[in-house]
Amino acid sequence: MQNNSVLIHFSQSDSTNMANTIDTTSLDRNYCVIMAGGIGSRFWPESRNNRPKQFLDFFGTGQSLLQMTVNRFRELVPMENILIVTNVLYLDMMLEQLPELKPEQILCEPARRNTAPCVAYAISHISGMVGRKLGAKSIADVDWEDPASHANIIVAPSDHLILREDKFIDTLKVGLDFISRNDNLLTLGMRPTRPETGYGYIQLESAKDKCENAVLPVKTFTEKPNLELAKVFYESGEFLWNSGIFLWNLRTIRKAFRSFQPSIADVFKKGDEVMGTPEEEAFIQQMFPTCPNISLDYGIMEKAAGVHVIYADFGWSDLGTWGSLYDLGEKDENRNVALRGTSLFYESQGNVVTLPEGHLAVIEGLHDTIVAQNGKVLLICKKQDEQSLRQIVADVEKKFGGIYS
Amino acid sequence: MQNNSVLIHFSQSDSTNMANTIDTTSLDRNYCVIMAGGIGSRFWPESRNNRPKQFLDFFGTGQSLLQMTVNRFRELVPMENILIVTNVLYLDMMLEQLPELKPEQILCEPARRNTAPCVAYAISHISGMVGRKLGAKSIADVDWEDPASHANIIVAPSDHLILREDKFIDTLKVGLDFISRNDNLLTLGMRPTRPETGYGYIQLESAKDKCENAVLPVKTFTEKPNLELAKVFYESGEFLWNSGIFLWNLRTIRKAFRSFQPSIADVFKKGDEVMGTPEEEAFIQQMFPTCPNISLDYGIMEKAAGVHVIYADFGWSDLGTWGSLYDLGEKDENRNVALRGTSLFYESQGNVVTLPEGHLAVIEGLHDTIVAQNGKVLLICKKQDEQSLRQIVADVEKKFGGIYS
Repeated sequence: MQNNSVLIHFSQSDSTNMANTIDTTSLDRNYCVIMAGGIGSRFWPESRNNRPKQFLDFFGTGQSLLQMTVNRFRELVPMENILIVTNVLYLDMMLEQLPELKPEQILCEPARRNTAPCVAYAISHISGMVGRKLGAKSIADVDWEDPASHANIIVAPSDHLILREDKFIDTLKVGLDFISRNDNLLTLGMRPTRPETGYGYIQLESAKDKCENAVLPVKTFTEKPNLELAKVFYESGEFLWNSGIFLWNLRTIRKAFRSFQPSIADVFKKGDEVMGTPEEEAFIQQMFPTCPNISLDYGIMEKAAGVHVIYADFGWSDLGTWGSLYDLGEKDENRNVALRGTSLFYESQGNVVTLPEGHLAVIEGLHDTIVAQNGKVLLICKKQDEQSLRQIVADVEKKFGGIYS
Repeated sequence: MQNNSVLIHFSQSDSTNMANTIDTTSLDRNYCVIMAGGIGSRFWPESRNNRPKQFLDFFGTGQSLLQMTVNRFRELVPMENILIVTNVLYLDMMLEQLPELKPEQILCEPARRNTAPCVAYAISHISGMVGRKLGAKSIADVDWEDPASHANIIVAPSDHLILREDKFIDTLKVGLDFISRNDNLLTLGMRPTRPETGYGYIQLESAKDKCENAVLPVKTFTEKPNLELAKVFYESGEFLWNSGIFLWNLRTIRKAFRSFQPSIADVFKKGDEVMGTPEEEAFIQQMFPTCPNISLDYGIMEKAAGVHVIYADFGWSDLGTWGSLYDLGEKDENRNVALRGTSLFYESQGNVVTLPEGHLAVIEGLHDTIVAQNGKVLLICKKQDEQSLRQIVADVEKKFGGIYS
C-alpha cells in the first residue's frame, strides 16, 4: 500500500474558478450513514427478531443504542444529511425512535446482503442528493471530480457503544478534515486494551508515529484471531481493533466500488436517474436483492490501496457479546454488574444481570454468569459459554416455533 | 410412658343403655382441623406475606396445597366437619379457594400464637358443635364421658405434601379406629428415608414391632437434630419423622389441655357459652391474643403419657424448604427439577426451577441452585445456602419496605 501523502485535488473542470475556492470541509458537505439492519441474536432474550439490539436501552439511560448513535453525530452532520440503512421490517420502529428524521432518510433494504451493498445503496442515495443540489437530472450527469460535488461521508454501525463522546467528536473532526482533502479510504482503529478474540484487527505500516488521532497508513486487515494470535497482536503494538467506522469522500468511495465491486456498482448504476425520486423504492425492491452478499471490509477495504486509519481511543465496544457489556458495566466491589433493574448479590462475583425495569433479583452463590430476564424468558448462562447462545436460540426457535425468539 | 393397652371406655352415666351401643367410629363423628395460618418466608419469592405457601400451586397441578389437603379428607370426614384455622388476613383467600366451605368453618385467629392455642380454639369450637347436637346450651353442660359426645379429631397442617393418598387414607383409618376406642394422643410418624436435619424426630419405645400402620408407644419427641445426630437417629431404626399430623378423641384432648396447658384451657373455658354463636368472633377477638405462644408438641405431646404413633409411609414432606421441593420433584437425566413453567437445561445439574406459568428459562452451566421467579422478583440461590433465605428476605424488606416481600 502507498504511504500517506496529502494530496489536494483541484477541480479539472474549466467552467469556473469558483470551484477552487469551494470549502470541502463545510458542515453541509458532511453526510452520515448509520447501518442498522442487524438482529443481534447473541443478546437473546434481551434482543429478539422483532426488537433487535440497536433499538434497546441496554444501560437504562432512556436512549437506545440507535438514538445514542444518531445524537452523537449532531455536531458533525446536519440532521437532514443523516441516513439510516435498515431492514424494511424495522421501518416503523425506526420512525418511532427517531421522530426528527423524515421517512426518506430511512433507507430500507428489502433483503439482507451484508455491508458492501448496504453502503453502496447509501452512497448512491447520497449521490442523488448531491446531484439534485447541483441541478443534475441524473447521477450520471454529475462531474465527481468537480469540488462542487464534494461530500464527506461517515459510515457507522448503529449498535456500538462509545464512552467518551467528546473524544469521539475530536477524532471524527480529524477524520473529516483528512477525507475533505485526501482521496484515501479511512477507518477508525481503536487502541486495544486486551487480547480480544471478538474483534478484527488492523495492522499499521509502522507503529513508530502512533499517537492519539494520528492518521496512519494501514498495512493489512485481519479476521478475528484465536487467543494465541490475539496475544501476539496485542503485545506487538502494531495492531488496532477494527471498529467498523469508516470515512471517505464521495468521489473516492464511488471509484472504489467501481474498481473492486463492479457488479455492485453496475446494479446501482441502473438507478442513476431514480435515486431520491418516488421510483427509488421500487428500483431498490427489485434490484437490491441481486447484489452479492459481501462485507465492506472484505469487498473494499482489504482490496484498496492507500487505506489509512486514525489511531483512536475514546472507549469503544461493538457490544457484540454479554461479556463486552460486562466489561463496560459499572462493577460493585465483587465485580458484579447490574445493567437494569435492581440486583442484590450475596456471595456472588463477576455476574452481569439485566431485568425488566422495576424488577428485583436476589442472587446468592453465583459466579461469572449472565442473568437476563426479558418478557417471558429468563436466561442464565456462564459468561465463558456465551458462544453457545446462538445454538441455544436456534434450539428454542426449533422447540417453540418463535414464541420466545 | 405407659404401653399401648387398648382400653374401651364405656359411658359412666346411667341415663340409658343406648350409650353403650353408640358407634364411636361412624363417619359423622369425625372432625378435621386444618392449620393454615403460616407465612412460609422460606419460599420467598414464591410465597409472600399476602400469599402464603398453603395457597400456592407449587407443582402446577391446578390445586393449591390447601385445596389438596382439604380434598384428601373428603373420604374420612363429612365436609361440614372440616374446620380451617387461619389468620384473619387470609379469610377472603380461604373462601375463594374453598367455595364448598361455609364461612363459619373458617376459624380466624386475630393474632399468631403458635399451634397449641390454634388447636385449643378448634377443640373449643368442635365442643360447641357437639354440644349443640346434644341439645346443650353451654359446652359446660356436656358430659364428655358420655359416648354420645364422642368425636374423633384429626389435626393436620395445610401446606404439606402427600404423594400416596391411598396409603394416607389407609393410615388415617387405622388412626381413627384407634382413637375411637382409646384415650391416647396419637401422632403420625413417617418412615425416615435420609438423615434429614429439617424435621423433628419421634423415638419409639421399641423398634421390634415396627411395620407399616402399626400403632406403637412413643418413648420421646426430639427437636430438629444436627447432621451427626440425625445420622444416629436414622441408622438406629428407632426414630420416625414427626409429621405434625395428630389424632385424638375430643374427650382426651380436652383433658390434656386441662392437665398440661391450664392457662389456655382457662381462656377457652370463658367461651363455653358463645362458641358457635354470633358472639364467638368477638370473644376470640378479645381473648385469643391472651393465650401464651406455645407449640402443640412442646405444650401437650411431650408432656402427655401414653402417646402413641402410627408408623406411616405414604411419601410425605413438610415442604419446609426448596430442597424438599427438589427432593420430591420429578428429575430429568441431569437431576434438574422444573416445578412450573418450561425450562431448558444445558450443562446443568441438580437445579430446581419455578417460573410463572407460560414462561421459559434457558439455563446453562448452573448446578445445585434454586431459581424462582415470581412477579417482579427473581431468586437465584445455591440449594445448600437456602437457610440464608430468611435473612435475605429480611434484608429485602428492610431495603425496599415491603414492595418485594
